[in-house]
Amino acid sequence: MAKIEHVSPLAPKEGFPDLPVIDGVRFAALEAGVRYSGRTDVMLAELCEGSAIAGVFTRSSTRSAAVLDCQDKITQDLPGKAAILVNSGNSNAFTGKSGFDSVAKITQAVADELEIDVNRVFTASTGVIGEPIKWERITAKVPDLKSALTPDAMEMAARAIMTTDTFPKGSTRTIDLDGTTIKIAGFAKGSGMIAPDMATMLSYIFTDAAISRDVLQQCLWLDNAKTFNCVTVDGDTSTSDTVLVAATGKADMAPITDFADPRVRPFRDALHAVMKDLAIQIARDGEGATKLIEVQVTGANADGPAHRVAMAIANSPLVKTAVAGEDPNWGRVVMAVGKSGERAERDRLTIWFGDILVAENGWVAPSYTEEAGAAYMKNDEIVIRVDLGLDNGTATVWSCDLTHGYIAINADYRS
Amino acid sequence: MAKIEHVSPLAPKEGFPDLPVIDGVRFAALEAGVRYSGRTDVMLAELCEGSAIAGVFTRSSTRSAAVLDCQDKITQDLPGKAAILVNSGNSNAFTGKSGFDSVAKITQAVADELEIDVNRVFTASTGVIGEPIKWERITAKVPDLKSALTPDAMEMAARAIMTTDTFPKGSTRTIDLDGTTIKIAGFAKGSGMIAPDMATMLSYIFTDAAISRDVLQQCLWLDNAKTFNCVTVDGDTSTSDTVLVAATGKADMAPITDFADPRVRPFRDALHAVMKDLAIQIARDGEGATKLIEVQVTGANADGPAHRVAMAIANSPLVKTAVAGEDPNWGRVVMAVGKSGERAERDRLTIWFGDILVAENGWVAPSYTEEAGAAYMKNDEIVIRVDLGLDNGTATVWSCDLTHGYIAINADYRS
Repeated sequence: MAKIEHVSPLAPKEGFPDLPVIDGVRFAALEAGVRYSGRTDVMLAELCEGSAIAGVFTRSSTRSAAVLDCQDKITQDLPGKAAILVNSGNSNAFTGKSGFDSVAKITQAVADELEIDVNRVFTASTGVIGEPIKWERITAKVPDLKSALTPDAMEMAARAIMTTDTFPKGSTRTIDLDGTTIKIAGFAKGSGMIAPDMATMLSYIFTDAAISRDVLQQCLWLDNAKTFNCVTVDGDTSTSDTVLVAATGKADMAPITDFADPRVRPFRDALHAVMKDLAIQIARDGEGATKLIEVQVTGANADGPAHRVAMAIANSPLVKTAVAGEDPNWGRVVMAVGKSGERAERDRLTIWFGDILVAENGWVAPSYTEEAGAAYMKNDEIVIRVDLGLDNGTATVWSCDLTHGYIAINADYRS
Repeated sequence: MAKIEHVSPLAPKEGFPDLPVIDGVRFAALEAGVRYSGRTDVMLAELCEGSAIAGVFTRSSTRSAAVLDCQDKITQDLPGKAAILVNSGNSNAFTGKSGFDSVAKITQAVADELEIDVNRVFTASTGVIGEPIKWERITAKVPDLKSALTPDAMEMAARAIMTTDTFPKGSTRTIDLDGTTIKIAGFAKGSGMIAPDMATMLSYIFTDAAISRDVLQQCLWLDNAKTFNCVTVDGDTSTSDTVLVAATGKADMAPITDFADPRVRPFRDALHAVMKDLAIQIARDGEGATKLIEVQVTGANADGPAHRVAMAIANSPLVKTAVAGEDPNWGRVVMAVGKSGERAERDRLTIWFGDILVAENGWVAPSYTEEAGAAYMKNDEIVIRVDLGLDNGTATVWSCDLTHGYIAINADYRS
C-alpha cells in the first residue's frame, strides 16, 4: 500500500471547512477493518422521511455492483427514510456474482437496522479491485453505526471514505430563498489511490431544501457536467464514480417541484459552487500534484468541442510534465489542441498563460518573453487559456501536473 | 536540452541492422548547425526519375508547414527525380507565415541544386517548436549534401533525423516477386524529445520495386493503420508526423499498377514487416521506457472498437505505471476497457498476461496466482491480452511503461 506521508501542497490552507448541520441528516463513521487498520473505513448517513435523492454515476462499461445497484434504485423516488453507506479499502468491483451478493447483504443489513426500505439504501465502495469484499465486517458494524449517528459528523464521514487522499474535502454554501435560509454542505474523496487500485471519485452533498427528486436530478446533471466532469488527474475513469445529492426538505419553504421555479437558479448557483469547490479540491489532491492547472477554452464551435479541447490539454502528459517542470511550453498546448480531433485553425489560435499573451496569429506573440512565461509558471495555480477564434463555445476544466510523485504512488509500490 | 546519457534498455541487442543499397536512391547527411552542434542534423535522399512516392501524415489540426507542403505535393505523381530533405533541431511548427516561407526556401534550394521540380521535393522538420527555423543554415549546405550523396548512407540518414532518440531505428526485408528480388529498407525516428519539443514520428522507407503511386499509397494507408498508427508512448500527437514510402522502380519487373495484382500481397507483407519493426522500435525508445507493452484485443464488435479498447489500455497512465512497477494489476486493465467508450460486458471479459489467464467470467480466474502474475511482469516485454467475448474484431498495439524517466525527460529539464 502506498504510504501517504505528506499532505498535498495544494491542500486548502484553512483546512477542512466548518460544515453546518443539515436538518434531517445524521452521520456516523467507524473502523470496520475492511482492509485498513487504525482508521475509520465505513460511514453511514441517515436521511429523514421524504428526502429527495439524485445521483450521477460513472459511465464505465465495467462499473461496480454498488453503482449498478444505486442506478436501479435512484429513479424510484420512494417517500420513506433513506441511507447511504460507503466503505473504503475494497471497491467490490470485478468480483463477479459475489459482488452483487455483497451489496445485497450490506443494503439489507442497513435496511433492517434502520427500518428503511432496502430500495432506499445506497452504497458505494472504494479501494482494492477484484478481491471479494469482507461484507460481514461491514454488516457487523451497522448496529454500532446506528448508535453513533449524530447530525454534526460530516467531517468524520468525509475522512472515512478517503483512500490515499492526502486531505478530506468539504464545502458548504448558505443561500436565502425568499426569506428562508437554505444550507448545502457536502464532501468528496478523490484521486489518491492504493495499489492495486484506481482513483475513485465519490461525493455526497446534503441540503435542507425542499425540492423534488426530478428537479434535483436535473440540477445535478447540469451542474455535474461543469464541475465533477471537468476534473481530470490522469484521464483514467473509475468503475465506481458516484455523486449523490440528498435534499431533506426540512427547511421552511414551499417545495420546489418545477425546474422553471425562480428559486431553482439561486439554488443551482449554490449547489454548483459546492460541487465546483469539491471538484477542484480533487484536482488539488491528484496523485503527486504540485500545481493546480485550470484550462479555459473559449471561441470553440460549441461547448462540447470546447470541453474536448480543454480535456485534451488537461490530459496531455506533455502539458502536465511541462507544468511540473515550470516550463512555459506553449508548443505543447498547440500540440494538444491539434490532437483533440476538434476543429481548430492554427492562425486563429490565441494562447495565454494567466494574463500573459503567449501566442496569436499562428506564432508567438511579439510581446511575449520567455522570462515572463517562466516567472508565471512558478505559481502554484496555473491558468492555461486558449481562444480558438471560431465561435462562442466555452469550457473550463481542472487538472494537476504530472510529477515523479505520480509515478512513485502508482509504480514504485506493490500491493 | 534533455541530455540522453543511456541507450534504452529495450534497444535491439544486435544494433542497427545492415541495410541493403536500394537501387535508385542516394543519401547524404551533414552538420548544418540548425540547433545542435557536434552532430549531423540534416539528411538528403535523392530518388531517381520515375520514383513513386506515397505518404501518410499527422491528422493534427495544427500540423506544420512542411506537412502541409508535403500533403499538397504527394498526390501529384510527377514523373521526374525527387528528393526528401529532413532536418532535426527545429520543427518549424507554429511559426506563422515565416514557416511556409522557410519550407519554400529549402525546397527551392534542393530543387535548384538537384535540378528537380520543386513539387517533387519533400521536407520534414523535427525539434523545437515556435521558433523561426534558420533555413539559411540548411540551404547553405545543399551543395555539400549533393556532393556527399551515396547509395549506402541510410544509417547516416537515420542518425541525422534523431532528436533525443537513444538509438537509430532501421529495418529491411527482401522478397522474391516472380523471380525478381525486391528490397525494402527504411528508417524512423521516434519519441525521444527535447524540451520544449514534442515527440515527432518520422519514417522513410525505400524500395526498388516498380509500383504505381496509387497502389503504393493504398498499401501504405492499409499497413500504416496496423503499424505506425498502433504505437503510442503518451497519447500525444505531433504536428509533424510523417511516413513516406518511395519506390524507385529499378528492379527488373513489370510495374505493379493494380491493387489486385497478385504480387501486391507479398509486397505488402514485406512492407508491413518493415513498418511494424520500425513502429515497435519507436515504442522501445519511448521516453523513459523500461518495458515494451503489446496489447492484443480480440472478440470486439469490429476492428475499430478493438483498436480503441487497445489504445485505451496502452495509453492508460495507471496501466503503464503498473507495468513500470512490475505489478500484475489486472484491475487497471478492466478499468481501461471500461473507460474506452466501446461496448464491453464485464462478465464476458477474459484477460491474460502473456499466457497466464488472469480473469474471466467477471472475476479473477481460479487458476490465477499473484505469484505467477508478478513473475511474468519481470519480463522486458509484456503482452496484455483481452478478449471481449462479443465478436471477431481484433487489434494489436504497442506502448511502453511510464516511469520516472519520462518525467525526468519532460519535466526536470528546461529549455
